[in-house]
Amino acid sequence: MQQILLTGFEPFAGEASNPSWDAIQQLDGWRPDAETIVRARKLPCVFGHSLQVLEAELSALQPVLVIAVGQAGGRTCFSLEKVAINYNDARIPDNSGQQPVATTTDDAGPAAYFSSLPLKHIVQKARQQGIPAEVSFSAGTFVCNHVFYGLMHQVVKTPKVRAGFIHIPYSPQQASRHQTASMSLDLVVAALKISIEVSLLQQPDLQLAMGQLD
Amino acid sequence: MQQILLTGFEPFAGEASNPSWDAIQQLDGWRPDAETIVRARKLPCVFGHSLQVLEAELSALQPVLVIAVGQAGGRTCFSLEKVAINYNDARIPDNSGQQPVATTTDDAGPAAYFSSLPLKHIVQKARQQGIPAEVSFSAGTFVCNHVFYGLMHQVVKTPKVRAGFIHIPYSPQQASRHQTASMSLDLVVAALKISIEVSLLQQPDLQLAMGQLD
Amino acid sequence: MQQILLTGFEPFAGEASNPSWDAIQQLDGWRPDAETIVRARKLPCVFGHSLQVLEAELSALQPVLVIAVGQAGGRTCFSLEKVAINYNDARIPDNSGQQPVATTTDDAGPAAYFSSLPLKHIVQKARQQGIPAEVSFSAGTFVCNHVFYGLMHQVVKTPKVRAGFIHIPYSPQQASRHQTASMSLDLVVAALKISIEVSLLQQPDLQLAMGQLD
Amino acid sequence: MQQILLTGFEPFAGEASNPSWDAIQQLDGWRPDAETIVRARKLPCVFGHSLQVLEAELSALQPVLVIAVGQAGGRTCFSLEKVAINYNDARIPDNSGQQPVATTTDDAGPAAYFSSLPLKHIVQKARQQGIPAEVSFSAGTFVCNHVFYGLMHQVVKTPKVRAGFIHIPYSPQQASRHQTASMSLDLVVAALKISIEVSLLQQPDLQLAMGQLD
Repeated sequence: MQQILLTGFEPFAGEASNPSWDAIQQLDGWRPDAETIVRARKLPCVFGHSLQVLEAELSALQPVLVIAVGQAGGRTCFSLEKVAINYNDARIPDNSGQQPVATTTDDAGPAAYFSSLPLKHIVQKARQQGIPAEVSFSAGTFVCNHVFYGLMHQVVKTPKVRAGFIHIPYSPQQASRHQTASMSLDLVVAALKISIEVSLLQQPDLQLAMGQLD
Repeated sequence: MQQILLTGFEPFAGEASNPSWDAIQQLDGWRPDAETIVRARKLPCVFGHSLQVLEAELSALQPVLVIAVGQAGGRTCFSLEKVAINYNDARIPDNSGQQPVATTTDDAGPAAYFSSLPLKHIVQKARQQGIPAEVSFSAGTFVCNHVFYGLMHQVVKTPKVRAGFIHIPYSPQQASRHQTASMSLDLVVAALKISIEVSLLQQPDLQLAMGQLD
Repeated sequence: MQQILLTGFEPFAGEASNPSWDAIQQLDGWRPDAETIVRARKLPCVFGHSLQVLEAELSALQPVLVIAVGQAGGRTCFSLEKVAINYNDARIPDNSGQQPVATTTDDAGPAAYFSSLPLKHIVQKARQQGIPAEVSFSAGTFVCNHVFYGLMHQVVKTPKVRAGFIHIPYSPQQASRHQTASMSLDLVVAALKISIEVSLLQQPDLQLAMGQLD
Repeated sequence: MQQILLTGFEPFAGEASNPSWDAIQQLDGWRPDAETIVRARKLPCVFGHSLQVLEAELSALQPVLVIAVGQAGGRTCFSLEKVAINYNDARIPDNSGQQPVATTTDDAGPAAYFSSLPLKHIVQKARQQGIPAEVSFSAGTFVCNHVFYGLMHQVVKTPKVRAGFIHIPYSPQQASRHQTASMSLDLVVAALKISIEVSLLQQPDLQLAMGQLD
């Protein structure tokens, strides 16, 4: 039985919940096919410690596919991140009180990694099923990007493993306190299932201009 | 049996559906209490003719409450409109090909009417139930505002009748082609039920600053 | 010598300056033609008292044209307001500490007045001269809208007097602390001159759809 | 005499001008100090050819500092780009009709380079002088990012050379046709002078959280 690792985050920035964790919990134990099972794990919203937890899970599970998920308040769509950068710059403290400024995640690492998920293929399938989705070229400089970079820095050594990061909008409950965009949990879960199914195909990504996607 | 009239619109601007009609259809026949039943009616997205259809329904049903609903692509929240203006100015043709510029809906009417729905009370209840909601001070200058103005111009003669207009975001299906904000149909329907229930209480609106609403 | 009254506001919301006052000061004494002179006056950012100051100036100057100007942080363009509403609802206290909630400016007044400036003609001329300009359908519910409504409520009695309200973006100095849109003072001053010149023509407004304006 | 290379672009996307070229032309020949002179050069808005022109200028001038500048319609601030990515994905054709999809700028190059300009120091100085400025983490995937990546790929071999990319908003003239944010040319020129002066100091960048910048 091969394993897929999904990670979500604990709440941060004063929120009572984090839809990334709420969503992936619903997929813990889901079997996209007969040989594959999904494992959902929660990461602390803490620079450094989040990566230690992630690396322990990578060692324990030896997953074939890893998708880290995080909340990005204000986004309107299911956002497939393309670029993880080796740069931390926090506007607010993380959940341990750290606020790194202009630091690297790995002193010896390259400036950036690209996601190895088939981003456009996922976007196309999501849109075909009526779910707003997009490719994003910045995952920010907070713990989300930090985990994305640390994840890609790990899995680059095992080229068969596909990995990437997805940002999701506020839940409606959160947005009702911020008057901004939101996405219902059932749509997020459906889009995550599509992301897993398309990634398991192990095909190269679609060579379509973004404007040509349905 | 007293009646409530909900109106929604047919699709426009090249869309295949209109979530205002999709949502209110689900409430046709709903009984918010033992003496009250909801009637859902579709309006054409046409200056003039939309008001003729509305006025025929007002005559036929003699409703105690009227809520007209329309789609406003790009909005992030369930938007309770405060102000209907006596001014039509269309950036695109309506569904009959008319594109009025700087016209009035009623030559002898006042510049504007205010909604008589308890807007802040509805916003508060919606947010308490986790639905993003807001008061809006412009319903635009297209058919939505035209119907809102024409509705208020009719019901101002019957002060016991509460009436108003609500704009809703794109559905997720629509937003998947526009990469903008959306709201799931079940949230829209839940928010419309709240709007009806709160409006039936016949209480004055909450005297709370918007920032104090939950 | 006929007179034109321009009003601007004192700073509010913690700002050190208000570009509406900075801009109109530059036009105090300007003569758009041989028979006409501009008078610039500062209004307090206070519900009620702002209107008392305005009404005293209207009595003293008996202007043929009145343009009230206010700052709207976040706007990207020179914004000609169409609608003044009889509704005050303050998210923050005014400069005297008042924070009215759901009050009227005039208990006996209509719901709204329309600007009597030739809005589209001004927008067209401004754009032709390379200044971003637009018509806006909501002046908000704070002191700006309050002054706009109070102004129109006064001048409606003297139909030959054209009057209206214009919102301007943050100055670059202000925007440098907010990371949002701004407009340079010289462009605002140029657009105000256009607004005065076009309004003095006493022609009806252009009958052009917004999309047809240059 | 040491030289500084500024590049701007020819117009694209149907625009009649490009403010990046309009701005840097004003700095051609400017001497920020007695030993240094600025050279302004125009690049074609064409994948590939733009880099050939740039590389020829780098060879000819052997500059100590290179700042490439481009227009980003919709931006509100002078935007210092942090990350150049090895990825081209064009939503519209370039000026030669090419529309690359999911290609690299250099097949053997790393995923990304970071700007070597002192970004936060420039932002701080610009804001202190009343110019809205920000650090951006995505230069897009069109010719601007392509030139930024190609530039950094060249200068990485000569570590003493500082280089980077700056996006500027529409000019007011452009924005008057789009109803979006703009920045006056004189502010852009002033911010470019600041960028040059601060970059010539050869100091490390400020270690300040973005929220702490004035």
